[in-house]
Amino acid sequence: MKILHGIGASKGIAIGKITLCLNIDNHIEKKTIIDVEAELARLDEAKKTSVEALNAIYAKALKRVGEANSMIFQIHIMMLQDEDFYGAIQTAIREEKLNAEYAVWQAGQQFSEMFSQMDDEYMRGRASDVIDISKRLIRNLDTRLANGLDSLSSPTIVAAADLMPSETVQMDKEMVYAFVTQEGSKSSHSAILARTMGIPAVVGLADQFNELSDGAEIIVDGNTGDVILEPDEATRTDYRAKQEEFIKHQQELKLLKGTKAITKNGVEMEINANIGHPEDVDLALENDADGIGLFRSEFLYMESNQFPSEEEQFIAYKTVLERMGGKRVIIRTLDLGADKQVPYLNLPHEENPALGLRAIRICLDRQDLFLTQLRALIRASAYGKLAIMFPMIISVDEVRQIKGLVEKVKNDLTKEKIPFDPHFEIGIMIETPASVMLSDELAKEVDFFSIGTNDLTQYTLAVDRMNHSISKLFDSRHPAVLRMIEMAAQSAKKAGIWVGICGESAADTSLTEFYVKIGVRELSVTPSAVLELRRAVQQIDIK
Amino acid sequence: MKILHGIGASKGIAIGKITLCLNIDNHIEKKTIIDVEAELARLDEAKKTSVEALNAIYAKALKRVGEANSMIFQIHIMMLQDEDFYGAIQTAIREEKLNAEYAVWQAGQQFSEMFSQMDDEYMRGRASDVIDISKRLIRNLDTRLANGLDSLSSPTIVAAADLMPSETVQMDKEMVYAFVTQEGSKSSHSAILARTMGIPAVVGLADQFNELSDGAEIIVDGNTGDVILEPDEATRTDYRAKQEEFIKHQQELKLLKGTKAITKNGVEMEINANIGHPEDVDLALENDADGIGLFRSEFLYMESNQFPSEEEQFIAYKTVLERMGGKRVIIRTLDLGADKQVPYLNLPHEENPALGLRAIRICLDRQDLFLTQLRALIRASAYGKLAIMFPMIISVDEVRQIKGLVEKVKNDLTKEKIPFDPHFEIGIMIETPASVMLSDELAKEVDFFSIGTNDLTQYTLAVDRMNHSISKLFDSRHPAVLRMIEMAAQSAKKAGIWVGICGESAADTSLTEFYVKIGVRELSVTPSAVLELRRAVQQIDIK
Repeated sequence: MKILHGIGASKGIAIGKITLCLNIDNHIEKKTIIDVEAELARLDEAKKTSVEALNAIYAKALKRVGEANSMIFQIHIMMLQDEDFYGAIQTAIREEKLNAEYAVWQAGQQFSEMFSQMDDEYMRGRASDVIDISKRLIRNLDTRLANGLDSLSSPTIVAAADLMPSETVQMDKEMVYAFVTQEGSKSSHSAILARTMGIPAVVGLADQFNELSDGAEIIVDGNTGDVILEPDEATRTDYRAKQEEFIKHQQELKLLKGTKAITKNGVEMEINANIGHPEDVDLALENDADGIGLFRSEFLYMESNQFPSEEEQFIAYKTVLERMGGKRVIIRTLDLGADKQVPYLNLPHEENPALGLRAIRICLDRQDLFLTQLRALIRASAYGKLAIMFPMIISVDEVRQIKGLVEKVKNDLTKEKIPFDPHFEIGIMIETPASVMLSDELAKEVDFFSIGTNDLTQYTLAVDRMNHSISKLFDSRHPAVLRMIEMAAQSAKKAGIWVGICGESAADTSLTEFYVKIGVRELSVTPSAVLELRRAVQQIDIK
Repeated sequence: MKILHGIGASKGIAIGKITLCLNIDNHIEKKTIIDVEAELARLDEAKKTSVEALNAIYAKALKRVGEANSMIFQIHIMMLQDEDFYGAIQTAIREEKLNAEYAVWQAGQQFSEMFSQMDDEYMRGRASDVIDISKRLIRNLDTRLANGLDSLSSPTIVAAADLMPSETVQMDKEMVYAFVTQEGSKSSHSAILARTMGIPAVVGLADQFNELSDGAEIIVDGNTGDVILEPDEATRTDYRAKQEEFIKHQQELKLLKGTKAITKNGVEMEINANIGHPEDVDLALENDADGIGLFRSEFLYMESNQFPSEEEQFIAYKTVLERMGGKRVIIRTLDLGADKQVPYLNLPHEENPALGLRAIRICLDRQDLFLTQLRALIRASAYGKLAIMFPMIISVDEVRQIKGLVEKVKNDLTKEKIPFDPHFEIGIMIETPASVMLSDELAKEVDFFSIGTNDLTQYTLAVDRMNHSISKLFDSRHPAVLRMIEMAAQSAKKAGIWVGICGESAADTSLTEFYVKIGVRELSVTPSAVLELRRAVQQIDIK
């Protein structure tokens, strides 16, 4: 038995066996082979398995996200069967006597490099796809590297260096007991994903990650960040009891469904859910959220291999609004860039993507796609209580530009006699220090503020929230951050608009009283934290 | 004749011929050769030329920076002659029939990759050296790619994608009329370097950069950002006149030497110089600066292949203090990380280095090297008027930790009977939004604030100042930034400490009156801007 210490990123306890996803780049060995024909046969076999898997994923995706968004997997199949690419691998095996894994890896690097230098935008976008299919081939060549995330058949604890959004799209949520990752922090994507799914997670294991092996039994304690390797019987029993207790606590929280988040002294808070996909509305409803405080619209873009059409977007937004039955739904416009990339947007490589071309900056640069999203959103407003929220604002000028575009879309829709709700709200994210400093002026322009504490903390402290080597410096409760939040809340109050918080620290119940006191009236958290937070509000009594 | 428009990054006008430095990674072609022996001979010839050049650079560096700091060039020579590396190139030419350029490039990539995965810290540090020598070989193989920056023999205008600090160390300042770069912004390193050297520069030419060809005649107007390609006679005459006018203006400014920067209403400002090397004291004195407002201590680390010793540092600091003869000299402690890397520090790769392990964070993590610097600094305090400044502060706790270490060093020196000035000042950079928000508390801990507007703007706006694709968003005069500066100045005033500005916008004369009004009393700028700024102060009259 051995205890590792990571960062508890999503509460709960899991006991199970590890499915280990090795980081391929660190595990490719270059070998000289003797039997060329046997190696070519291995390669063919891996290709066959890969094509079968891709066909299965395509079929699954087709049902879930529609044809346009699933096409990428057909493209992967075509690329796998491309004579240039596959021929280059075969040649390297035959002439350089390379082992298949290395030959694939080398061809992947070369073709990706070649694609990325092409003049054509579409072809450049293929650079990351060729890496993707190379990895798939390698995982099918070397069982040590296989992760089987596509086709988990029994529930397991997934251990990976890090989980990228693109890797999780295909994962079957029912089959994952818990996540354990080498990198990441409380606010990295794998952590957020785990909380959204309501499954335990420990992140940031760093070097200790190397202790994990595929198939080993572990206990994951998402409350403390502990990971127990090969537990003895007493420990297992102990954690089974803790697991039951946790489940019991969860059941008690369920009794709060149907109640309101009102402090003892009578302040009513709106406790909303953050979601990333229309399907997550299930989770929001199941946890009795008062509404949706943050609907991240990126999924539409990240699950597709082209810009989603106005109609596709409209249907997604309308679905969420209708299913929330008149409760407030705040949809954030496109927040790509930084750590969320899609190949077809073809963003330039950046030294510091978190300080780069992202979110509203992309939208104002490429108004065609922004107008498409605005039209879809405003059309959807006819089907519920919509609020639109704009990310990464740093100036009054940006807000005025946005409002001009919103007016244009409203006028167009009116002329075209397409219905919409003229009273939908417009708000901005307060997540840059600039937006806090200008919050008095910005408050005059919009209906609400929603404070994004993750990015606000990151920029205020100049600490990348994904950077493990300085994760101890990332602190959403840092006094500088709390002063920023208070400053924005005061500006909102003065201008008579409402202010909410949708970053991770909205769920930090040790801050709830502070939020109530400074005038925050909405908190939006991962669905699984809604009831816990409602209870925290109900216990507050401000004299 | 053709006019290109870039960003004027350093004032002045230059007329001359281009020395073009192509970005090698974009210009390596893979070819199949026929005459293997001829190709091997070309390679040998390029190696010979490279070794000769490195010997010459070594001899030059030996004189300028001493043996320890010059050793790196001997290491480069040894690596060039290494059998594994050189043999791999020869094998690729012989067996894969690759052209020498591609064979070198490929071997460079492979060996660099190999080094970077080694267990030994020293060997990992060699990864960037192997890239460096590969580039040198390639430049000697293909005259198109030769940049000749090591051995400029007649004055020229240097055109490059970007100039990294490491590339400029060897450059002969007398031989450069002007810089023109594809990337960068007003506050990128090549721009700062140009201003320190007092030579004209235009940066951020972007795609227009491709119009430039080696040997072409151009005019560089660092005032407007215009670059005129193959000027006609009338234009040339016109610019010669402008050039003379600019020089005349510079001469007028010289008449201000010996005067003080006092506003008409009697407020005295201290106008200091920013320097990056002990040699730059010449420039500070030549421009009659009131002192040194920012001495960047990184040069000691960046010009060396190992940590500089206490003695080496002590001599450098003492030299500057003595030469400034009792005028204030503010030395900033180590600010590595982000865009300033040294291989032997062996920092982890980071997604967002500007938000990563840098500056004081490295120093507090690795107190051994920080204590060495503090000892060298405090020992040097005996030889002039020293102030020590700490970068990237985000909390009161950091400042207290630092003060504890300073006390420890003072006690040690007292015990060892080593002299120092007990009255040297301690200050912090205000360059993170967090330090502004906590400036009231921080002001109680230190003797002064120095506001670093470059980083403060970058973090406040969440805009990487080196990122060309969003350079229009980088604005040191953004109202949010000005409010931050005002907030820090108010905190300083309330605590009774002095506040200065050492970022690029200290030199922006349209802001000087604002700075005076909010209570800033020190401005530190590139030496060539000192007199212009003194004149601006003398013209201010606040009723």
